[in-house]
Amino acid sequence: MLLRVERMRIILMGMGVVGQAFLELLELEKADLYRKYGLHPVVVAASDSNSMVYNPRGLDVQRLLNHKRSEGTLHGFPDEVQGMDLVREVEAEVVIDVTPSNFRTGEPGISHLRAALQTGKHVITANKGPLALEMPALVEMFQHKGLRLLFSGTVGGGTPFLRFVGKCLSGEKIVSIRGVINGTTNYILNRMEDGISFREALREAQEKGYAEADPSNDVDGWDSAAKLVILSNWAMDLGVTLKDVSVRGIRDVEITEDMLSRGKTVRLIATADESGLRVQPEEIDRRDPLVVPGALNAVSFIAEISGRHTLIGKGAGGRETAAALMRDLVELKMYLGGVEPCS
Amino acid sequence: MLLRVERMRIILMGMGVVGQAFLELLELEKADLYRKYGLHPVVVAASDSNSMVYNPRGLDVQRLLNHKRSEGTLHGFPDEVQGMDLVREVEAEVVIDVTPSNFRTGEPGISHLRAALQTGKHVITANKGPLALEMPALVEMFQHKGLRLLFSGTVGGGTPFLRFVGKCLSGEKIVSIRGVINGTTNYILNRMEDGISFREALREAQEKGYAEADPSNDVDGWDSAAKLVILSNWAMDLGVTLKDVSVRGIRDVEITEDMLSRGKTVRLIATADESGLRVQPEEIDRRDPLVVPGALNAVSFIAEISGRHTLIGKGAGGRETAAALMRDLVELKMYLGGVEPCS
Repeated sequence: MLLRVERMRIILMGMGVVGQAFLELLELEKADLYRKYGLHPVVVAASDSNSMVYNPRGLDVQRLLNHKRSEGTLHGFPDEVQGMDLVREVEAEVVIDVTPSNFRTGEPGISHLRAALQTGKHVITANKGPLALEMPALVEMFQHKGLRLLFSGTVGGGTPFLRFVGKCLSGEKIVSIRGVINGTTNYILNRMEDGISFREALREAQEKGYAEADPSNDVDGWDSAAKLVILSNWAMDLGVTLKDVSVRGIRDVEITEDMLSRGKTVRLIATADESGLRVQPEEIDRRDPLVVPGALNAVSFIAEISGRHTLIGKGAGGRETAAALMRDLVELKMYLGGVEPCS
Repeated sequence: MLLRVERMRIILMGMGVVGQAFLELLELEKADLYRKYGLHPVVVAASDSNSMVYNPRGLDVQRLLNHKRSEGTLHGFPDEVQGMDLVREVEAEVVIDVTPSNFRTGEPGISHLRAALQTGKHVITANKGPLALEMPALVEMFQHKGLRLLFSGTVGGGTPFLRFVGKCLSGEKIVSIRGVINGTTNYILNRMEDGISFREALREAQEKGYAEADPSNDVDGWDSAAKLVILSNWAMDLGVTLKDVSVRGIRDVEITEDMLSRGKTVRLIATADESGLRVQPEEIDRRDPLVVPGALNAVSFIAEISGRHTLIGKGAGGRETAAALMRDLVELKMYLGGVEPCS
């Protein structure tokens, strides 16, 4: 089988944990990507929150990583540029967006997606904001332009929840979804099971780096709700956005001795079924497959014929999410090269 | 997109629970299969343990099912034939083998596979025997002849454990596998956790139809070992057969109060890792994702980059296994028609 080998030029928006892990993985797997898939990725531009770099012949990825790590910024890197609209102005095949998720404005992700659409670039994104707020319209616009919008990294980090439905249950109707899709709250609830208070468990999660300084997206359920929107649009073709989800967080949850002795506990469950979309703490049997330890995620897909399938894995992590981005990159290459993407 | 619509002629070997469920599903989904995939399946021959039927224009599936159900045999059906070697003599594109698994001789499955190879037919099988005993050689021979050998239904019933690795973790190296892949023993161990003896739990499993009259393939670990061979050849390309697995069953297991109070239990765990393949009862943390209730199955795949992924689902069942056969049939059609099988 012959593969067309052409440079795939990448604009990387965001140089946080995930962005850096992605560049690292790209360096590590360079030879394999070329050999196995004829994929020759070249990062031509990158940005962090206050600087940007650009080199049409390709940035030196290892030096870029070293600079970012030692200086904490891209500022001062030899290829630094000022005042460019990278997504719009730089020639490239694909934009990889790993900027932070904002569930109110969707920015800066939404502007990146719009600019990519207008200038004919494919997008691989790990940013949940734009999809949570406008997924049905975005998917339609990308399809209409013949562009790919890939978002494996938005749900489940390296655990392929979305791919599981698309590739493993294809042909089957998914009648409902139930999942534990926020690792921070799952960690907190597991610790509360051990007898400590919500407040203490939250502080612990922050110390371990699971929870951010402002934990509200996690503990109030918004991160789960955003992922539920993406999952259920993808698996059940519901055409929903964040405003269609009824959301309640875990701030007032108590896990009592009595509950535990009855074999029950509480988890923050995201559900999509015939009565709609909701995220709420629910009492659940401790033997249920959705009851997973630590910061793990778990999603049950209920398929019409083959029943309930539950997939469990790490829900986040820079390296894991970078692996999802890489799988999307390979999928994009296979799509562009007209080669069978899955065997 | 244009699909070539041609008859796909099927020889169905085996008319037990799975064979009947498959025919039912075929009738139910006929219109969808045609509309979505251009697939027009025609069952031209079928056999049960003591009779066979054949009609080159296609058997009447609904009447065949009714006859088998009311009479308990294919004997007496209008299209009954005598003394034919169906797989060898009947013209067809695919043989679907749902005969019982035999882990000593591999028969009758192995003869079906050889006859299919010699007469240029693709095979979809749910029979674990031939693969447990000769998988590396069989896979090579089918590849060599340009024929497909599909076996999603051999592991996990309708839960797509094999497809998960092939399609969702493609590109990642699987470094180890750990699984609970026999529903009968999992049911028994769950009941022993509730305080009843092995003997009582086994009797219960037999009453519920989980365990066969001769339960040794299940409780002595052979069924798990066969599935481990198939899983690990597929996911890790190990080139192993049943004789490479160290096997110990659950007959002498005890689950003590002390163990449970320490948060532990026992499960029959199948493992493939750098030190080889083994099936044995192991003490395990009750919060581990492999600890699942009832007759469920669970498999953890440990991937080099994205870590541990655990998939949980029903491990058996006629309807579920039939759904796996159907997915293989669609995959075969896509392969033959040159159409993208997964999107």
